Amino acid sequence: MVQLLARLPGLGPRSARKAALALIKRREELLVPLAAALNTAIERIVVCGECGNVDTLSPCSICANPRRDRSMIVVVEEVGDLWALERAGVVSSLYHVLGGHLSPLDGIGPERLNIARLIERARADEVKEVLLALNATVEGQSTAHYLTEQLSDTGVEVSRLAQGVPIGGELDYLDEGTLAAAIRARKRL
Amino acid sequence: MVQLLARLPGLGPRSARKAALALIKRREELLVPLAAALNTAIERIVVCGECGNVDTLSPCSICANPRRDRSMIVVVEEVGDLWALERAGVVSSLYHVLGGHLSPLDGIGPERLNIARLIERARADEVKEVLLALNATVEGQSTAHYLTEQLSDTGVEVSRLAQGVPIGGELDYLDEGTLAAAIRARKRL
Repeated sequence: MVQLLARLPGLGPRSARKAALALIKRREELLVPLAAALNTAIERIVVCGECGNVDTLSPCSICANPRRDRSMIVVVEEVGDLWALERAGVVSSLYHVLGGHLSPLDGIGPERLNIARLIERARADEVKEVLLALNATVEGQSTAHYLTEQLSDTGVEVSRLAQGVPIGGELDYLDEGTLAAAIRARKRL
Repeated sequence: MVQLLARLPGLGPRSARKAALALIKRREELLVPLAAALNTAIERIVVCGECGNVDTLSPCSICANPRRDRSMIVVVEEVGDLWALERAGVVSSLYHVLGGHLSPLDGIGPERLNIARLIERARADEVKEVLLALNATVEGQSTAHYLTEQLSDTGVEVSRLAQGVPIGGELDYLDEGTLAAAIRARKRL
């Protein structure tokens, strides 16, 4: 159990031992309910066949929601990014989860990501725009570049998130890459 | 000495006592050279009459540099912001330091900032663009709004830094304001 807990992100070997001890000591309040929750997850959680989101249904509650705007697909790397955008309440359209980013050095090529299904979805008549909401990292941006090429003959408009100074950001604390991007993409007032 | 040191940003009363003790103990290596450096600063450092930068000369070495592009003025809140942009090497033009931002609640109105001189400089024939490189905070943005109005009849183009995802930024760690700005200002590819 300690070894498995230590594989969770954020838990090292020492904190995994602490967590295991806490689970054993608090059997009824913690260990039993956690085991039950994990079993429920095993039984009920499925990956949405449309967008790659995780939910208890496929298509997921977002894909199945008739009030969602179907003209735009927001492409994200991970389900965590989808959650972040949903928490912020800034997307009213559909999503597509790639399941990571291209990383040739780690052997992660296009076939390992949920890309074929994205191209297929982008060809649907109702889809007008694909917004690549990928991380502003080297991997995220090279994945965006690859996707832009792949989407070029689908007829949809392809866009990416704006890059620049984050809201609340003070110049003095920003790295030079961000300052350069913010100056390059400056907006006329 | 402790009380004065404690007024420095980043030093609390306790670290000010530690710093004072270190200065006294290391008289020849630390205390004497620091006192000399402070005296040099008193004698030699002046505020540039053109842009508000601090230097040993007025006009400062940036304003006096003939290789600087004189068609753009980059407006910053503080000298620290100018230093950040110079460190990043992303500005080849001139600057203008406001000396802070508008803050009506603290009694800081336009007359307390270096604004009149900016308007005057913006009217020069050679100046084509004023880039408001202010912090993406509420104060910075309301100052930018005020400056845009004041500059409207000078004939220069007024721009602001792009706002969005910082370079290297991962969606999962960004606040909702930044996510919303990044989606609003998304770029077509």
